Amino acid sequence: MVFNRALTKKLVTAAVLSTVVIGSFASLNQDSAKAEDESASKVKNIIFLIGDGMGPSTIAAHRYIKDNPSTKEMEKTEFDKYLVGMQTTYPEDPAQNITDSASAATAMSSGYKTYNNAIGMDNDGQIYDTVLEQAKRDGKATGLVATSEVTHATPASYGAHDESRRNMDAIADDYFDEMIDGNHKIDVILGGGSKNFIPEEGRKKDSRNLAEEFAADGYSYVTTKEELLNDDNGQVLGLFANGGLPKLIDRDDSIPSLEEMTKTAIERLSKDEEGFFLMVEGSQIDWAEHDNDIVGTMSEMEDFERAFKAAIEFAEQDGETLVVTTADHATGGLTLGSNTKAAANGDYNFHVDPIKAFKKTPDYISAEIFAAGANADVEGIMKKYIDGSFYSQITAEEIQAVKDAAAAVNGTEIDNAIEAIVNDHSVTGWTTGGHTGEEVPVYAFGPEKSRFKGLLDNTEQAHIIFDLLEENK
Amino acid sequence: MVFNRALTKKLVTAAVLSTVVIGSFASLNQDSAKAEDESASKVKNIIFLIGDGMGPSTIAAHRYIKDNPSTKEMEKTEFDKYLVGMQTTYPEDPAQNITDSASAATAMSSGYKTYNNAIGMDNDGQIYDTVLEQAKRDGKATGLVATSEVTHATPASYGAHDESRRNMDAIADDYFDEMIDGNHKIDVILGGGSKNFIPEEGRKKDSRNLAEEFAADGYSYVTTKEELLNDDNGQVLGLFANGGLPKLIDRDDSIPSLEEMTKTAIERLSKDEEGFFLMVEGSQIDWAEHDNDIVGTMSEMEDFERAFKAAIEFAEQDGETLVVTTADHATGGLTLGSNTKAAANGDYNFHVDPIKAFKKTPDYISAEIFAAGANADVEGIMKKYIDGSFYSQITAEEIQAVKDAAAAVNGTEIDNAIEAIVNDHSVTGWTTGGHTGEEVPVYAFGPEKSRFKGLLDNTEQAHIIFDLLEENK
Repeated sequence: MVFNRALTKKLVTAAVLSTVVIGSFASLNQDSAKAEDESASKVKNIIFLIGDGMGPSTIAAHRYIKDNPSTKEMEKTEFDKYLVGMQTTYPEDPAQNITDSASAATAMSSGYKTYNNAIGMDNDGQIYDTVLEQAKRDGKATGLVATSEVTHATPASYGAHDESRRNMDAIADDYFDEMIDGNHKIDVILGGGSKNFIPEEGRKKDSRNLAEEFAADGYSYVTTKEELLNDDNGQVLGLFANGGLPKLIDRDDSIPSLEEMTKTAIERLSKDEEGFFLMVEGSQIDWAEHDNDIVGTMSEMEDFERAFKAAIEFAEQDGETLVVTTADHATGGLTLGSNTKAAANGDYNFHVDPIKAFKKTPDYISAEIFAAGANADVEGIMKKYIDGSFYSQITAEEIQAVKDAAAAVNGTEIDNAIEAIVNDHSVTGWTTGGHTGEEVPVYAFGPEKSRFKGLLDNTEQAHIIFDLLEENK
Repeated sequence: MVFNRALTKKLVTAAVLSTVVIGSFASLNQDSAKAEDESASKVKNIIFLIGDGMGPSTIAAHRYIKDNPSTKEMEKTEFDKYLVGMQTTYPEDPAQNITDSASAATAMSSGYKTYNNAIGMDNDGQIYDTVLEQAKRDGKATGLVATSEVTHATPASYGAHDESRRNMDAIADDYFDEMIDGNHKIDVILGGGSKNFIPEEGRKKDSRNLAEEFAADGYSYVTTKEELLNDDNGQVLGLFANGGLPKLIDRDDSIPSLEEMTKTAIERLSKDEEGFFLMVEGSQIDWAEHDNDIVGTMSEMEDFERAFKAAIEFAEQDGETLVVTTADHATGGLTLGSNTKAAANGDYNFHVDPIKAFKKTPDYISAEIFAAGANADVEGIMKKYIDGSFYSQITAEEIQAVKDAAAAVNGTEIDNAIEAIVNDHSVTGWTTGGHTGEEVPVYAFGPEKSRFKGLLDNTEQAHIIFDLLEENK
């Protein structure tokens, strides 16, 4: 197989794409599915939510965390009610057979497998319309919402084309420059990453201030939750952090939640009579998992679940909105159960109390200890952010490990020592700082939801959505 | 919550059971599912296959292994075509929130959550009919097939009632003694575990020879593949090993495969005009995962997939057979991708060639090295069972670790050293020697398959099957 990554940027429209079907399961699923949909409604709006790194174990951990301990039953999550199947995530990379977020999102946005790092581009440097771009061609309103930089791999793969996810400045430029029928292609852009839009706020190498350019074209530009909620412009750029947003449990009131961003995006986009396409990413589930941080992972799952629920509530009211939720891949090799010091082999438990005891992430706590220098009051800071009922169970050795890292003023080691405490006591396992290859769950609600049932490949997400856009013109 | 494990053995029949619905999703799934089934056929026969320990990552690893490297697409497995959803597996144990095989199989066989170790019995020592027993009450033929001892936790939970899975002798006695309407309740019993049926062959403490007792009541008793295939008695006890069967790739021609046992079971049971219920377990997927042995895990997945395919092929021909396949839980914290020596963080691969290079399991190879004593020809034995293309990539340090363990005549360490080689080179991760808590896939084919779609709880497997038995009387 020859891989040519030359950046040819040849544009192939969805008309060509729709004749291509990779894999035999899309058609199989669609054949038998027609009869099942409760509603024969038109699919006017599509909300596609991606929990980055939300593998089967992430969903399970979230269910254990949300369980009401006073009932025998383990309550279902908001997601669980809408499970329709799973999807495979493998890339088409010359050297790797487990996907990254760019390759996976490109598969879901365009229907093409590609190499890891590719943004909206295949192995030959060929560019295809994404489902967001096709929706804009069809006259719909469009939006991208994320808790990472809004130019990060997943949203970028819906709104840009670049040979590398690392080129986030160029991706931000694409968001502005790549017009469709004379219009900017993304109406609502909400997330982090002002550093990639505004030279003064970060590393942006060119001198363009995209916030000013968007504003000059009629977009609102907002940087706080208050500004966002007091604005009702159908076109808005909202950048609430220099890089990624703080995680839900670390966030202050100046920064909107993923739920709030999702709600305001839907409110604005749903004014369009032609309908809308909105992609929402719970970006930092994955980031916390890369860090092997179960507290942060659960924080971001909560943020994502609330956004998902907001989408479902709109769709229930609206009747013409399809909601699809999935993940791009799993991350970290997270497992509920592990050989830890606290749990000998054979102790079959995932203890949620140690996780729920944390009021801030280990990242947040370790940053405060680190900032206080070699003489930091380690115990004082830890007690401030960890409930006493669990704090009292932490061993002297575990606290000493944090103190040793603090004395060495080593931020990474402080963080690792705190994470080790919660992983050990909760019996959380991790195998890697990278991604893993298992399939991920797929949830769907609304008209035509049954097209997503069974085992899909991630490319079929795009194929089905292109078909729905075409059929519902 | 008060847990009373007193062995009261109170029998509650399925008539009572059918009025109890735990969880709200059984009804929800059934409401919307009626329209979807392709066939309105009667459910005359039910084949329920359990891949013990077959979590999402196990399925994914098997898919990577089976992939044809000469195509870009990753081919679907036999299972993949029939994915309808997933199921939660948590037990109702006073001290553990991750299930064992006994608790999980009891949930699936009876519809009741229970404590880990329980065989067909709830936390109060209450006994309920299993779906196998109800099928027998309804006049159907019944069978249990496993590659473990056929009295092991999973099959036992369908055919016996005991406060502990450890009482395998008593479980074997139950198989013979617990008559239903004057008949033995299990017509076809195939697997390992002669030690629990025949005093001379193992640890069976009582003096009963159940093989003779079954034979006296008209059963055939067979102990080799040849004897099994040359026999066509509708009632048969087949015990092909003292304990569990050797794994597929270690097995010699005297021992039937899971596929062969499944086929002959179906052939015998399908002669019953009232239909049949058959439970088939791929028992040792789990055992290999407990050992963190990816070679053995893949061997047993292959064995299980072939048995599953045999069931599907019968059901396709028959038209009145429902096939359901799932797992009881995941095991080992298996992940595709890991931080190994061979793969630094960021090398996103699951390499199948090192796994496929093994002609025997590490257990088998290490047993031969161990048997040869302190001066074993380690390299000679390893080269006999590991393809040269991969053997040449094994480092001197890795081989030395096996030699060191061999010199110490430490069988466990020899095994671990060989497993470390294949785990490292394939980039396979493990977090535990125990079970993990994520949900597991559910596959279904045949009439009424859609009742199993979405996210089920494991208890719903029993509820749905009890309903189907009642509706199809």
